Amino acid sequence: MTVNEALKQIEAFENTNSALNHAAGILYYDGDTVAPEGSVEIRALTLGEISRMSYELITSPSFIEALETLYANLSELSEIDQRKVKELYREYDNTRKIPMQEMIDFQIHLTESSAVWHKAKETNDFASFEPYLQKTFDTLKKFASYTDPEKDPYEVCLDKYERGLTKEKCDKFFKALREKLVPLIARVGKADQIDDSVLHLNYPKSQQMKFTDFLVDVMDIDRKHFGVGETEHPFTINFTSKDVRITTHYYEDNLSSSLYSVVHECGHALYELNSMPELFRTTLEGGVSMAIHESQSRFYENIIGRSKPFCALILPFLKNEFPEQLGNVGEDEFYRMINRSEPSLIRTEADELTYALHVMVRYELEKKMMSGEITAKDLPSEWNRLYKEYLGVDVPDDKNGVLQDSHWSNANIGYFPSYALGSAYGAQMLNEMKKDIDVDSAINSGKLTAINNWLREKIWKFGCLYDPTDLFNMVCGEFNPEVYVEYLENKFTEVYKI
Amino acid sequence: MTVNEALKQIEAFENTNSALNHAAGILYYDGDTVAPEGSVEIRALTLGEISRMSYELITSPSFIEALETLYANLSELSEIDQRKVKELYREYDNTRKIPMQEMIDFQIHLTESSAVWHKAKETNDFASFEPYLQKTFDTLKKFASYTDPEKDPYEVCLDKYERGLTKEKCDKFFKALREKLVPLIARVGKADQIDDSVLHLNYPKSQQMKFTDFLVDVMDIDRKHFGVGETEHPFTINFTSKDVRITTHYYEDNLSSSLYSVVHECGHALYELNSMPELFRTTLEGGVSMAIHESQSRFYENIIGRSKPFCALILPFLKNEFPEQLGNVGEDEFYRMINRSEPSLIRTEADELTYALHVMVRYELEKKMMSGEITAKDLPSEWNRLYKEYLGVDVPDDKNGVLQDSHWSNANIGYFPSYALGSAYGAQMLNEMKKDIDVDSAINSGKLTAINNWLREKIWKFGCLYDPTDLFNMVCGEFNPEVYVEYLENKFTEVYKI
Repeated sequence: MTVNEALKQIEAFENTNSALNHAAGILYYDGDTVAPEGSVEIRALTLGEISRMSYELITSPSFIEALETLYANLSELSEIDQRKVKELYREYDNTRKIPMQEMIDFQIHLTESSAVWHKAKETNDFASFEPYLQKTFDTLKKFASYTDPEKDPYEVCLDKYERGLTKEKCDKFFKALREKLVPLIARVGKADQIDDSVLHLNYPKSQQMKFTDFLVDVMDIDRKHFGVGETEHPFTINFTSKDVRITTHYYEDNLSSSLYSVVHECGHALYELNSMPELFRTTLEGGVSMAIHESQSRFYENIIGRSKPFCALILPFLKNEFPEQLGNVGEDEFYRMINRSEPSLIRTEADELTYALHVMVRYELEKKMMSGEITAKDLPSEWNRLYKEYLGVDVPDDKNGVLQDSHWSNANIGYFPSYALGSAYGAQMLNEMKKDIDVDSAINSGKLTAINNWLREKIWKFGCLYDPTDLFNMVCGEFNPEVYVEYLENKFTEVYKI
Repeated sequence: MTVNEALKQIEAFENTNSALNHAAGILYYDGDTVAPEGSVEIRALTLGEISRMSYELITSPSFIEALETLYANLSELSEIDQRKVKELYREYDNTRKIPMQEMIDFQIHLTESSAVWHKAKETNDFASFEPYLQKTFDTLKKFASYTDPEKDPYEVCLDKYERGLTKEKCDKFFKALREKLVPLIARVGKADQIDDSVLHLNYPKSQQMKFTDFLVDVMDIDRKHFGVGETEHPFTINFTSKDVRITTHYYEDNLSSSLYSVVHECGHALYELNSMPELFRTTLEGGVSMAIHESQSRFYENIIGRSKPFCALILPFLKNEFPEQLGNVGEDEFYRMINRSEPSLIRTEADELTYALHVMVRYELEKKMMSGEITAKDLPSEWNRLYKEYLGVDVPDDKNGVLQDSHWSNANIGYFPSYALGSAYGAQMLNEMKKDIDVDSAINSGKLTAINNWLREKIWKFGCLYDPTDLFNMVCGEFNPEVYVEYLENKFTEVYKI
């Protein structure tokens, strides 16, 4: 096989692979947004088939021959093709180590698991979900022993979401956060609490939907390739950079919930929408890792979205839409309400300051589950114990506790640390960005175009061309969690006037 | 290969085939309901890939060997397997005659064609759609010359939707209709017209959506496997019998539009939902032909849905929901409004009496396009000429004319006659049904369960086990369009008191 023939073969692979991912993605999106309840079985069967086709595709002899041909001739390839071959080889190598039938069975299991979790959360019934969750952890452990028998199985999971991430790095990072944040949270706790009750008046869904439209405009997202759906748990999904969807959830007694879900998911969406055209439909298109992804989504949600100028930007729209609820609220008052901090139960509703503690709970539990120290049966009580220990709150029931997130139901184990890591990345990105542009003016302008442009050039356009750590270092230099801590200290001492 | 091995192979084929159909179907459904405009390109590429996979699947050597093994041992197989092997062989034989790349290119063309049609209809711009439409007709002609070079290409199309249907049969059927219906329509035209202006007052969408829910209840549809979306042009799509979706379109100035779209599409949905369990995920699951399908949908829409007892059943709900609009309307008055007949522009909004003439226009044009007598450029003027000749109406623009239906944009050429044929089938089915159950009482009961049960046992459960003509004959004996004509005569002379 010549290098050119091999490149053609890789292109054909990528076309089919993109189609299978697109199909699986749209089945998942439909399943979570509008599909009838009884469609779970057939969707699981179809996703199982697609998973088999993907497996056969990446282990097909002609594809492997092409990969090996290119691997042997790396120096002849363009930078993009070199990276592609290395990434595909890695993926192939990981896939072939897992027996096909086990992969398919796991895919079918996950589709069911997701449906069972939805129902379990609704009915506050952890017991029904427990065996599915245990099986998910067990399977991931088994798969880790296939792909990397020498490595700690939880580190195999961490590496999947943030290449190179280890328990040691996480422990160190979380320790640094905890040492500084716990006393800061305690100081905030003693200060006069901010009254944000007006944010919990009645905000009709139809008007919140108009507000979503406004936010999408502010974030300068190309609607031709973007859509918004509704789900219990907001998420972003992309079918190449030409079709990216976010979802949100409207609560009529909570104005900021959908607001910050939308801004957060739009951050993910912008990243996915802006890979350079050369990467369209290839393995290298889209976000490179979950921590870099969360650095974008949480940057928009918190650093931009909960900033003074952003609050000042959206308040007139909100006053106009909700004059009775917000007519008397001043800019500074609104900004402080939006940044009200208090240890709470739900991660996605948590304020910027206490957020990392929610992540730490999940990190500790995942570590223990993967090491076998605890089993799924222990999760509710362990969850509740750690929420008490870290956040000082009592968890009233599992739907407000261990059942709140969808991640575990989809086998996204090792994902959570990315949220905290991404938040910390974002603080360093802000400092870098400020060297090039006037961030506040960019927000004041009413459209985030200048901010988008900076991030596109520094991060988004590269897709998966660089390892996440390398990409971060290119933009921000060495990672230093102190920058994040300092950002939080400055912000919350001012918000709480302490 | 033993018979058992071959059966296993067929089962594996059906699993994959079902998954590919499911994926393609959900991409189409998403594309028509919620996908962003700019997703067309990637959807076209993905559907092209899926089409290639389907082609490779049905022409794979192991599948063909299995088919041939079973074909040689038909007598050893169960009734279901015999039918399955014959149907699959037919499909394989038709597929292999069309070069794979041409099939894929056509699939990509159709995804684009559908998007162009949507836009063309919106902007009343036939010229932009014309080259796509011409290519669709040309390609179908070419494909017909591959699969059945001896046969008239339009008859190849007709046969695809109703096996055994020919131009001769259609001509004869339409002639019988025209001879009787044209004078009847003329008599109705001279009678005092019914004032249905209250049906065109303002009916807010949110309340119409509640009414849709009510109708789904009346039709006794299992919501666990059923959903309702919104599209420009209503349709039904099924992903096996476990997940069936319909769509509707709400017009706030037209109460009956979504009402009868919903009842019509629910008729299709019931058929798809009720294949016997043995057919689940096999080639034989679901409706056998478009005429049988339309016999179900149009039976519910017109024979049931526009009957006196059905009008009496839904009126109290409507009066309660829309007291200002309908508070003063009596049962008989409502029934007559619902059955108001007048030659008009839009097929899907046409009354039961003039409906067949709309179909005839399309049938005549398809015949001429397929014979090459006219080209796509001629379609708007020919359309307008025939509407004047058959229905006596002037077509003001193409969006109310030749661009109104989605069928041609999706290459559904030869489909339209099924609507008229199905309507005629329905009238004979009613007569048979009346021998077994009291249809009026079934409607009066508030749920159509008894009617559903009859149709399930006579038609739905068999899926594709029998040829459509055989199935019809089993239920109704010989086809006789006079029964339909008589039904229309009785109904409309009474409605118009002539």
